[in-house]
Amino acid sequence: MNPICELFGIRYPIISGGMVWCSGWRLASAVSQAGGLGLLGAGSMHPETLREHIRCCREATSAPFGVNIPLMYPQIEEIMQIIADEGVKVVFTSAGSPKKWTGWLHEHGVKVAHVVSSSKFALKAEEAGVDALVAEGFEAGGHNGREETTTLCLIPAVRAVTRLPLLAAGGIATGDALYAAMALGADGVQIGSRFALTVESSAHEAFKQRCLSLEEGDTKLLLKQLAPTRLVKNKFRDEVEQAEWVGASVEQLRELLGKGRAKRGIFEGDLDEGELEIGQAVSLLRGQQPVTVAQVMEELVEGYQRTSQRMAGLSQL
Amino acid sequence: MNPICELFGIRYPIISGGMVWCSGWRLASAVSQAGGLGLLGAGSMHPETLREHIRCCREATSAPFGVNIPLMYPQIEEIMQIIADEGVKVVFTSAGSPKKWTGWLHEHGVKVAHVVSSSKFALKAEEAGVDALVAEGFEAGGHNGREETTTLCLIPAVRAVTRLPLLAAGGIATGDALYAAMALGADGVQIGSRFALTVESSAHEAFKQRCLSLEEGDTKLLLKQLAPTRLVKNKFRDEVEQAEWVGASVEQLRELLGKGRAKRGIFEGDLDEGELEIGQAVSLLRGQQPVTVAQVMEELVEGYQRTSQRMAGLSQL
Repeated sequence: MNPICELFGIRYPIISGGMVWCSGWRLASAVSQAGGLGLLGAGSMHPETLREHIRCCREATSAPFGVNIPLMYPQIEEIMQIIADEGVKVVFTSAGSPKKWTGWLHEHGVKVAHVVSSSKFALKAEEAGVDALVAEGFEAGGHNGREETTTLCLIPAVRAVTRLPLLAAGGIATGDALYAAMALGADGVQIGSRFALTVESSAHEAFKQRCLSLEEGDTKLLLKQLAPTRLVKNKFRDEVEQAEWVGASVEQLRELLGKGRAKRGIFEGDLDEGELEIGQAVSLLRGQQPVTVAQVMEELVEGYQRTSQRMAGLSQL
Repeated sequence: MNPICELFGIRYPIISGGMVWCSGWRLASAVSQAGGLGLLGAGSMHPETLREHIRCCREATSAPFGVNIPLMYPQIEEIMQIIADEGVKVVFTSAGSPKKWTGWLHEHGVKVAHVVSSSKFALKAEEAGVDALVAEGFEAGGHNGREETTTLCLIPAVRAVTRLPLLAAGGIATGDALYAAMALGADGVQIGSRFALTVESSAHEAFKQRCLSLEEGDTKLLLKQLAPTRLVKNKFRDEVEQAEWVGASVEQLRELLGKGRAKRGIFEGDLDEGELEIGQAVSLLRGQQPVTVAQVMEELVEGYQRTSQRMAGLSQL
């Protein structure tokens, strides 16, 4: 049996990333209901908002779901207590060291996956006792690793150092990429962009429409002196790029970024002043309209099967 | 039959890139002799040197081989005349528009493949009449596209707009990556780094040893204001990075780069002052010693078969 499906008790080894301003209970429960594992994105929720989303998610589906928690979250103790109180069974941690919380989560009956951007971090996460890994490449939207290792290079590198159940993330939006990720050594995938643009995502409609109009090259990794972040081309990003080209300081960049830009862009739909985060694979969806999670899941599975049949039909080398 | 094998009359759809200071007749003929298609790298050869390498290559193997020509080569007319005079049957063009020379090459009985970094350039190359495409992603060593599209995102994007025989390049050093590239829609691969570090490559031994010691994150795309180039971490690159962080002008960067840096690094083995070019996948080879082309080809084919069997053995989703 597929190790990811076995670990989480799900049908398909497809996880929807816990994306800020996209991953509320509607998205997470729809993914879980369709046989994947939906994650709530705690990063953009107040603690009590998260509690509410957990409860709504459980009401909407009896299937397993999880919560993504960025470990630099300010009220992290409060969030973790809610995880325990509400009986959440799966937590994906990111943006921080998994040392501090993995044991505690295990004691509370929670399975833990951790997001890494290198084989070095993968080994540290394994030492911390996590149950699974997400290896996320340069293609991914939003916050990203400093080493800029792409999914194609990262998955074999992580697979070479650990046998833990492994999810590939970054650049995966279709069934053939899911299949390719598994050929590279992953046991499944975590998909962000594709789910961020579904009907059930809580992102603003204007954000979804803009993202579905993007061409190759319209997202770029910037803000490398703060935290490397993949941003969609818009007025705000042009300002960031200009500032970086003339050698702006960390302080100047921090001031330019300000607070709440991602909310403004993704949730409120301010396409000029907001920070628009999406992955590089978005250009493969160009010209589509937002579809339901169920349709995305069906397309992913069908695309995988189709690719599997095509590859089986090739003559051997 | 595989469209790349059919087009070039070769056994395996594996091409060795025409890399500056690596791809002389020893490397190219060894790849062709082993069933792939070896390319001579004209970019780092004087015209008469290229003529000599073509003749040596033909003497070393009766199998098909080709020449890679960067279209911004200063004495391009002279080079093209040599291609015709010497009866070269395959040319891979890069770094420029394929409009001017594709027709001329066809008239001289030469098959033409062109290297692109986006689906837009792929369409233009198809309009220019090329016989095949190389889609090269962000992972690749040396000169690189401006849009930073990774191989994982680029191959499906190019495949979506053209049915031309398609080679994936960038990030491919092993048989599982070859298999994954074909799952994404490529018909074969062009491999650079792996062949640059073989016994037959004309790169300096010190360069090979340094490259085989690199870890994830040790190569980085820089010089984006001139021509984006993936460089290995060393003293020279640190200077480039410093200059870019403080907002150096194009002129300052050009002066810092100077002339002949790649030769100094790759061919002469000056690991401090030279420009060291290699792809991101090099870290997957860490700790190995240079092996022969025949061994690399065998490993690629075996790795492909192994992955093919593993994937066939997975239960359907």
